[in-house]
Amino acid sequence: MSPHTAPAPVLADHACLIVHGPDQPGIVSAVAALLTRNRGNIVTLDQYSSDPVGGDFFQRVVFHRPELVAAFGEIEADLAATLEPFGLQWKLTDLSVPKRMAILASTSDHCLLDLLWRHRRGELPVTVPMVISNHTNTAEDVRTFGVPFFHVPSQAGPDKSASEAEMLKLLAGNVDFVVLARYMQVISGDFLDRLGVPVINIHHSFLPAFIGAAPYRKAKERGVKLIGATAHYVTEDLDEGPIIEQDVVRVTHGDTVAELQRRGADVERAVLSRAVAWHAEERVIRQGNHTIVF
Amino acid sequence: MSPHTAPAPVLADHACLIVHGPDQPGIVSAVAALLTRNRGNIVTLDQYSSDPVGGDFFQRVVFHRPELVAAFGEIEADLAATLEPFGLQWKLTDLSVPKRMAILASTSDHCLLDLLWRHRRGELPVTVPMVISNHTNTAEDVRTFGVPFFHVPSQAGPDKSASEAEMLKLLAGNVDFVVLARYMQVISGDFLDRLGVPVINIHHSFLPAFIGAAPYRKAKERGVKLIGATAHYVTEDLDEGPIIEQDVVRVTHGDTVAELQRRGADVERAVLSRAVAWHAEERVIRQGNHTIVF
Amino acid sequence: MSPHTAPAPVLADHACLIVHGPDQPGIVSAVAALLTRNRGNIVTLDQYSSDPVGGDFFQRVVFHRPELVAAFGEIEADLAATLEPFGLQWKLTDLSVPKRMAILASTSDHCLLDLLWRHRRGELPVTVPMVISNHTNTAEDVRTFGVPFFHVPSQAGPDKSASEAEMLKLLAGNVDFVVLARYMQVISGDFLDRLGVPVINIHHSFLPAFIGAAPYRKAKERGVKLIGATAHYVTEDLDEGPIIEQDVVRVTHGDTVAELQRRGADVERAVLSRAVAWHAEERVIRQGNHTIVF
Amino acid sequence: MSPHTAPAPVLADHACLIVHGPDQPGIVSAVAALLTRNRGNIVTLDQYSSDPVGGDFFQRVVFHRPELVAAFGEIEADLAATLEPFGLQWKLTDLSVPKRMAILASTSDHCLLDLLWRHRRGELPVTVPMVISNHTNTAEDVRTFGVPFFHVPSQAGPDKSASEAEMLKLLAGNVDFVVLARYMQVISGDFLDRLGVPVINIHHSFLPAFIGAAPYRKAKERGVKLIGATAHYVTEDLDEGPIIEQDVVRVTHGDTVAELQRRGADVERAVLSRAVAWHAEERVIRQGNHTIVF
Repeated sequence: MSPHTAPAPVLADHACLIVHGPDQPGIVSAVAALLTRNRGNIVTLDQYSSDPVGGDFFQRVVFHRPELVAAFGEIEADLAATLEPFGLQWKLTDLSVPKRMAILASTSDHCLLDLLWRHRRGELPVTVPMVISNHTNTAEDVRTFGVPFFHVPSQAGPDKSASEAEMLKLLAGNVDFVVLARYMQVISGDFLDRLGVPVINIHHSFLPAFIGAAPYRKAKERGVKLIGATAHYVTEDLDEGPIIEQDVVRVTHGDTVAELQRRGADVERAVLSRAVAWHAEERVIRQGNHTIVF
Repeated sequence: MSPHTAPAPVLADHACLIVHGPDQPGIVSAVAALLTRNRGNIVTLDQYSSDPVGGDFFQRVVFHRPELVAAFGEIEADLAATLEPFGLQWKLTDLSVPKRMAILASTSDHCLLDLLWRHRRGELPVTVPMVISNHTNTAEDVRTFGVPFFHVPSQAGPDKSASEAEMLKLLAGNVDFVVLARYMQVISGDFLDRLGVPVINIHHSFLPAFIGAAPYRKAKERGVKLIGATAHYVTEDLDEGPIIEQDVVRVTHGDTVAELQRRGADVERAVLSRAVAWHAEERVIRQGNHTIVF
Repeated sequence: MSPHTAPAPVLADHACLIVHGPDQPGIVSAVAALLTRNRGNIVTLDQYSSDPVGGDFFQRVVFHRPELVAAFGEIEADLAATLEPFGLQWKLTDLSVPKRMAILASTSDHCLLDLLWRHRRGELPVTVPMVISNHTNTAEDVRTFGVPFFHVPSQAGPDKSASEAEMLKLLAGNVDFVVLARYMQVISGDFLDRLGVPVINIHHSFLPAFIGAAPYRKAKERGVKLIGATAHYVTEDLDEGPIIEQDVVRVTHGDTVAELQRRGADVERAVLSRAVAWHAEERVIRQGNHTIVF
Repeated sequence: MSPHTAPAPVLADHACLIVHGPDQPGIVSAVAALLTRNRGNIVTLDQYSSDPVGGDFFQRVVFHRPELVAAFGEIEADLAATLEPFGLQWKLTDLSVPKRMAILASTSDHCLLDLLWRHRRGELPVTVPMVISNHTNTAEDVRTFGVPFFHVPSQAGPDKSASEAEMLKLLAGNVDFVVLARYMQVISGDFLDRLGVPVINIHHSFLPAFIGAAPYRKAKERGVKLIGATAHYVTEDLDEGPIIEQDVVRVTHGDTVAELQRRGADVERAVLSRAVAWHAEERVIRQGNHTIVF
C-alpha cells in the first residue's frame, strides 16, 4: 500500500482537559470559569458522577484556544491553582500532537492491517513509529504502509526477559502507548513497569467468558450462540484489566471452530480499532478496574 | 393486571434545565455559575454544539436543589436575567412532577400494553390519565392497569372533525403529551394545533423507507433483509416529523408478511418505549426537523 | 387482560419429523422417499451434519399429510422400518396438538407476562395449564390471562423436597415442558428426574460469564460494556445446560446495577420468548451439551 | 501487501446443485434419489418454498462425489432427465473451480481493499483477474496484492459508450461476475446486456431509503438514528435491483456527514464482503426482484 498517508486527524489549537476526583458542588462552575478566563471556547463537554454525594466525578472537555501552545503553561498553572483545593486530578493534552502508537503483532494480520489502514485513512490521531513482531510474515505489508518493522523473536521457555529487554530498547521513550494486535506472547509485569505507558490488548472472547487460551475452541465446546471480542488495558493479571470496548456476533451450531475464528476476526479488528481511536482521542479514563468512556 | 403501580421514577428536589440557542463563548460558565449560586448540585450534564463558531448550542443539566419548589421562581428569574443577554432559550422542569401521558390506540395492543406495563413497573416518569381508542377490544386490559379507557369511534369519510373534537374535549388541559401507540387514523393539522402538546407516533418502518400505509407488505415486495420501526414527533406531514429513535431486526426471504408484522411488533414496542421514556425524562430537544437526544 | 385468547398457531394435518444419528450416504433420500410414499408434502426441511464422514446427522422436516391423524401410526411404523437399518433416532410430532407449558415464577413478572401475552396473541403453539410461583404477587395478572395460578411457597433451608413434591403433584402428567421464568429457587436433580420433561431456564447473563447469583452486580464490578441473557435447558449442573439462545445489549460506565437489571430484563424476556417458541415448534435438538436450532 | 495468497477455499470433488421452479410433491425425493444413485454424499441441504401448494420451490444442495469431474456430464444428463418432468430449472456448479471476480472501483479504497484482503486470506472462493478503476490512486495497493490494475478513465458527458466499450474488451470472457466496489459511475443497460454476467453493487444507504446520490448527506438532513448499506444485483433501474444483504449502524445527532461517511464505510465493506462471499459460494438465488439467500 502507498506510504502516502493522510495527516492524522489532529486539531490545531485544541486541547483536551480531563478532570477527576471526589464529586462536590462547584466543580463544573470552577472549570468553566477557568476556561472562560483563559479564552478557551468549549467544543465538547462530557461528565459523569458515580454519585453526586460522595461519589467520583469525571469530566472531559475539548476546547479551542487561539495560540494554545503559547498559553499552555499558563493554563496548566491556573488548573493547578484552581483544582487543587477541590482535591481533583487533571490532565491537559494538546490535541495538535498525535500520540505515538507502537503495535506488537504475531502471525495474524487482521488487527494489525486494520489499524495501519485506518491510520493511513486519517481516522486515528496517531503516528506509528514501529511495528514489532515475533514473526516476519507481516514485514512487507507493514513496510508498504511506510511503517518500520522490527523482528524480535520469542524466547523459548518461560523466561522472556531477553526478548522483552530487546523490545524495551526499541520502545523506550519512543511511544505513548502500545497496542497488542493479537500478539500471542504473555507480557511480564516487569515489562509493563519498565515500559511505563498504557498497553491495549484485544482478547478474542467476550470477557469474562473464556479467559486464557483458545477461546474459540472453548466457545464451540460450550455451544454459545454469540461470540465476541474485548479490548482492555493490560495489567499483570491476564485478561483482567479494565475493559474499553466489547462486541459480539451471532453464530450457529453449524459454525466450526475455524469459522468462529474467521467471523471473530471481524469483531476483533472492529473492537480494537474503536478502543484505539477512543484511547488516542483521550476519551477513556481508567478508574481502578473500570473505564469511563466519553 | 394489578392496578397497584410502582410510583413513577420522579426525583424529589431535582430539576432539568434545557438551554439552547446560538453557540458563543461563556455559556457553560454562565450556566454553571448560575447553578452554583442557586445552590444547585449538578447530577448530569450533557451538551452539544453543531459548531462552536456560529453553530447551535444545546445543553441539558439535571441538578439537585434542596427545597426546589420554594426556589423555583427565583431560579427562573435568574435564568431569564442570565441567559437573555446570550439570546438563549431555556426551560426549567421540576422532575418531581410526572408528565401526564395520554395514549391513543386502535386494535393492536403490543405498543399500548408495553407502555402501560412499563409505567406500572416504575420505568416511566409519567401518569396515564387516559387511553383513547377508536376500538373497544383493549378496554378491559387498559382498565385492569387502573387506567381510564375512552372509546371514540372513528368517523367514516375524510372529515374527522367530530371525532377529533370529542378527543380534544377529553384531552384538553389534562395531558402533557400524547402517544399514538399504533393509532391507525390520520391526525389533522387542526387537531395538532388545538391540542397544543407534543405528539409521538410509532411508524412501522425504518423511515424514510416505506412511508405511508402497509410498510410490511412493501418491505416484503422490495425484498429487504432488515425491517424496522421509527418513533417520531407528529407534524402535519405524514411520517415526516423529527425522528426520536429507530431500530431494525434481521429478516429473511422465508418470512411472510404476517411474520414481518409479528417480528416488527417487537421492534415497534421497544422503539416506542425508549422514545417515550426519553421524552418524559426531558432528554429530547427538537430543532427544526431534527432531534438532539441526550 | 382478557382471557379470550387467539388459538395457538397449530397446524392441522402437519407433522414435524426429527431424525438424528450417524451421518451416512442415503439418509436424505430414504427419508424423502418415505414421505413421498406416505403422501407427505414437505413444507420445510432443514438439516445439518457435523461431518459428512463419520459425523452426526440432524434433520427436521415439516410436512403436510391429509388426514394425518389416521395415518400417524402407519407413518411411524414405516419410519421405524426405514430408519432402524441406518441406526438413526427419530421423533414424529403432530403439529396440530399444542404443547402443554407450565411456567414457574417468583416475584419478577417480565418474563412471565411476556410469555402469557405472546400465548394470548397466538405466537406460541402451546397451552398454559398452570403457573406456579413461590410468591403471590403475580396471581391476579396470571388469572386475568385465564391461566390457573398455584402458590407453592419455598421451603426454608437447603432441603426443598417438600415444596418440590408439591409442585410435582401439580405438574405430573399435565405438562410437556416447564419454563423457569426467573424462578429464583435451585431445582434438584431428583426433581428433574421425576418431572421427566424438558425444563428451560433464563439466566440473566451471557453464559458462561457470570454463572450463579447476582450476575448484574458482577457485570457492574467487572466493568463490561455489554450485558446479556441466556436461555438453556436445565441440567443438574447449575447454568451448565445446553444453550438455546443468547443476546446482549450495550451498556455504559454510567449504568447503575439497577439500570443493568432494567435493561437486562428486556433482553431476558426476548431471549426466553424466542427459546420457548423454538422449543414448542420442535426446532431445537439436544445433542450432549449442545443444541441444534433449525 | 504480499502477493502470496492463500488458495481460494474451493472444495475438491464437491458440487453445488441449485433447483428451482413450481413446488410440487416428490421433488425432494427425486433429487435425493438422483444424488444417491450418482454416488453423491450430501454435505449441506437448504430449501425454501414460498407455498407448498402452488408456490415456488428453491433448493441448494452441496454434495461430495469422488471423481466429480469425470462424472459431471453424467450427473447433468440425469438432472435434465429427472427434473424436466417437474418443470424445474437447475444449475450444477463444480465447487473446485473458483469464480473469476472483477472489481470496478473509483477513489474509495475501503470496499476494494477489504475484498482483496479477504481473497488473500482465503475467505472467498474466487480469483481476481483484474481491478478496473476510473482513477489511479489505488493502483499501487491493488498490484501489491498481485492483482492486475487497469485504468479506464470516465468519459465526460452522459455518453459513456467509449469507456464502457473499453471495459467490456477487458472483461469479456474473463470474468464470472463483477463487483462495483463504490464505483461512482452510472452503468448503462447496454453495458449490462453485453457483459452478460451478474454485477453486484454496494449502495451506501439502507435501501429503499436514500436512493441515488449523496445518501449520507440526505441521512443527516432527515435526522435518522441509524445509517446503513445495501448490496444488490445491478439492474437497469438504479438502486432497484434484488437486495442480497443489508446492515446498519447507530448514529447520533452529533455525527457530521463526514462521520456518517466514515462509520458507514465500515458497514459498506462488511455488507459487500458478505454478499460477495455468498454469491461466490452459490448461496444466492435470484427470483424476480428478490433473492433467496441460503
